[in-house]
Amino acid sequence: MFRLDPRLEADTIPLVTLGLCRVLLSRNAAWPWVVLVPEIADASEITDLSDADQQRLWREVAVVTRALQATTSAYKMNIATLGNVVRQLHVHVVARFEHDPAWPGPIWGSGHSKVWETEAQTALMTALREKLSGPTA
Amino acid sequence: MFRLDPRLEADTIPLVTLGLCRVLLSRNAAWPWVVLVPEIADASEITDLSDADQQRLWREVAVVTRALQATTSAYKMNIATLGNVVRQLHVHVVARFEHDPAWPGPIWGSGHSKVWETEAQTALMTALREKLSGPTA
Repeated sequence: MFRLDPRLEADTIPLVTLGLCRVLLSRNAAWPWVVLVPEIADASEITDLSDADQQRLWREVAVVTRALQATTSAYKMNIATLGNVVRQLHVHVVARFEHDPAWPGPIWGSGHSKVWETEAQTALMTALREKLSGPTA
Repeated sequence: MFRLDPRLEADTIPLVTLGLCRVLLSRNAAWPWVVLVPEIADASEITDLSDADQQRLWREVAVVTRALQATTSAYKMNIATLGNVVRQLHVHVVARFEHDPAWPGPIWGSGHSKVWETEAQTALMTALREKLSGPTA
């Protein structure tokens, strides 16, 4: 049975659930940062998923990427599945800017952390939920 | 017209060409590290590709991931498309080990670099080419 990893659960806020994935917003506001977790038990590598589920996952990643880029006007989108610390399969979608604290390096392990201002968090979550619940999502 | 970015060209050795992507081995031997570049002009985000090309890309990434993991017996595979420095769309597939120099952090920007020993490089390239040219690739 699928159960969200407790560390992913602690580090994120639920945004929406798509066909395959739970979509979560990172509590670290240093970047607009969304995580997709396929609701499949015991998957740690992309290749643990069936070909059909891989296709669904990447379609959902593309939908989230478009929504996050449109909402934030990001300079570059970063997409990654690492899993070196939390092995439960999850895909990061991160909006990057030339003025962000880790630019142009990767965000993971950069040590930067910021707490969301309530208003900014609500605005981002509302915009993303709207885009991800629409007929094109 | 597609032309491989000169920095990607300088940092890698051609391995094989699949249906959509040029598959390259990183010259940095600190990790078994392969890069896929879709032969599509002017793409920098995944979402710049058509839905069909995105599917082909991720299928090829899965094939390369399986081949690299099987060849190296990696502990974890890392897959990422960042493009903060080189904007031409490319996907990294990296074999990670608990004893590797950047573990458990990301490899990008970690500063670790190693020159391939000829024998190890030839063995890896031969094994990957064999797996990636087979009927399942």
